[in-house]
Amino acid sequence: MSINLPYLLFLGDAWDDLSAKTAIGVYQWRPDACVGQLRLPGCVPSVDLPELTIAEGRERGARTLLVGVVNRGGVFSQAWIDTMVAALEAGMDIASGLHARLGDIPAVAETARRCGRRLHDVRHPEGDFPIGSGAPRNGRRLLTVGTDCSVGKMYTTLCLHRAFAARGVDSDFRATGQTGIFIEGSGVAVDAIVSDFMSGAIEQLCPAADHDHWDLIEGQGSLFHPSYAGVSLGLLHGAQPDTLVLCHEPTRTHMRGLPGRALPDLASCIEANLAAARVVSGDVRFAGVSINTKDLEEKAARTLLESCEKELGLPCIDPARDGADRIVDAIL
Amino acid sequence: MSINLPYLLFLGDAWDDLSAKTAIGVYQWRPDACVGQLRLPGCVPSVDLPELTIAEGRERGARTLLVGVVNRGGVFSQAWIDTMVAALEAGMDIASGLHARLGDIPAVAETARRCGRRLHDVRHPEGDFPIGSGAPRNGRRLLTVGTDCSVGKMYTTLCLHRAFAARGVDSDFRATGQTGIFIEGSGVAVDAIVSDFMSGAIEQLCPAADHDHWDLIEGQGSLFHPSYAGVSLGLLHGAQPDTLVLCHEPTRTHMRGLPGRALPDLASCIEANLAAARVVSGDVRFAGVSINTKDLEEKAARTLLESCEKELGLPCIDPARDGADRIVDAIL
Repeated sequence: MSINLPYLLFLGDAWDDLSAKTAIGVYQWRPDACVGQLRLPGCVPSVDLPELTIAEGRERGARTLLVGVVNRGGVFSQAWIDTMVAALEAGMDIASGLHARLGDIPAVAETARRCGRRLHDVRHPEGDFPIGSGAPRNGRRLLTVGTDCSVGKMYTTLCLHRAFAARGVDSDFRATGQTGIFIEGSGVAVDAIVSDFMSGAIEQLCPAADHDHWDLIEGQGSLFHPSYAGVSLGLLHGAQPDTLVLCHEPTRTHMRGLPGRALPDLASCIEANLAAARVVSGDVRFAGVSINTKDLEEKAARTLLESCEKELGLPCIDPARDGADRIVDAIL
Repeated sequence: MSINLPYLLFLGDAWDDLSAKTAIGVYQWRPDACVGQLRLPGCVPSVDLPELTIAEGRERGARTLLVGVVNRGGVFSQAWIDTMVAALEAGMDIASGLHARLGDIPAVAETARRCGRRLHDVRHPEGDFPIGSGAPRNGRRLLTVGTDCSVGKMYTTLCLHRAFAARGVDSDFRATGQTGIFIEGSGVAVDAIVSDFMSGAIEQLCPAADHDHWDLIEGQGSLFHPSYAGVSLGLLHGAQPDTLVLCHEPTRTHMRGLPGRALPDLASCIEANLAAARVVSGDVRFAGVSINTKDLEEKAARTLLESCEKELGLPCIDPARDGADRIVDAIL
């Protein structure tokens, strides 16, 4: 899936930051790829971009309307549909991460067909994916893995990508979730793929490359999360990483969505990921640990990072506090 | 997916046993669920059932035409379509394990609609599957796992089911692949499910049950097969087994479809499956090993089974030679 940039961000009638988190995340990481925002009456959240109509967005070069909002109750309001139709008629494509398909909205589907525009439903990957082979391939590959879902794997991967780029290292960010795909303009939503093709889709996403090229691959889920561990393993095997970075959120009291289920300790999580990765990547190793300490005071954060570092013998950082340089040092 | 039995087996224009292996497998395990076979001119393989027309099959009570043949070149011949339409008009449903969808054949779709018949495409599971929770649930559950794909997991599970039934133990065979689904008349093709829902679909397939009820769950793939390990893990977590049986094919020189890739040794495979299963099932254990020795002489087979048994400290059997009683003894 390859999306034409830049975006006009559509925040619709979002009622809080969480309901517009896709738009906010894309703006945070790719302000250069966003020409403006379009908000309907009643929309609460906002990003620091000009408010544009469809026509103004198109004038400023927007090539895709990004539906960066979740819809209340799972239904599209007529106001959304009118905006989408206008965007298509103005010459934009539309990209969405909603469960509902853009192509299932008759007016949107008909207009896209008539105007020759593309509809990108990142939760509904199209096309044929191969079966994974596990065959060794050239190039360097780093994958972020986690103790749990939503612990900062995309954030850490993007920080690493910035740090690699700052040093002039040839690297690509490889997105595997919807926000990452919008940020990069390409990628594959691995959890939306038919399970037989998970590892093959990831092999296709990060193919053989020059021996000094790095693919920095966004991880998903956790080998210890019983809802999603299969996805995490398919992704791990498809990625064939030589380098892993463990991501963790230390204030979490239970696995996401599963009250009462404890998180794994970091050492067990490292060991399980190494064992699983060795099926495809004999020399795989961890380069560091990324801990999201946003809910800790500075002193508590420092103490935690130092004690983890001592226990694990790996650089332990919070990229939001210090950037990802220490892990990049360990890698390069 | 629940299919009305019995079947009229449709062997089409199959050119060898392999091209009709679905029909042959269903007949082998469920002769009671097959009223006859329907073979087109030129069909080579045959099962030990009367040759029936659609009308004769219907007279003998067939409720579903089972498309038990693969199609050459991925296309349906007109002769197949005529047979399918006639079956629908005679009052049968149709079940198929082909990649192509029955509902994409206009004449078949239209006739099914007109006659109110059901089309079962087991490779295209329909309906909403839940996200897995990993929450502990009652009932006993056994899962077969493998060193590789196609090493006898379905066969072993069915043998265990027979042995349980012979002792009057309340048990169900839970099918996760297409032939197993046809044999049982229900199940879910886990490798055809969107990956996010793998473990949830398996939780739904083998739900909480009485504490002395056994679900005997057909495994898929292998944690060591890089094409499918994610499916195997999603299935393992969804199954939440308290008992595992390892399946192995000792003459295989490499992982199926991956020349040059060695199979894991049995002890490593046992350890990896236990570690992964403990995420959902703290007290999980192996009850035995099922080794497919069909390509070995009797003496070599005995020697191998004895040496594995000694090395692993578990009953090692070939159910095709001796039945599954020794594993059932170990379990009960």
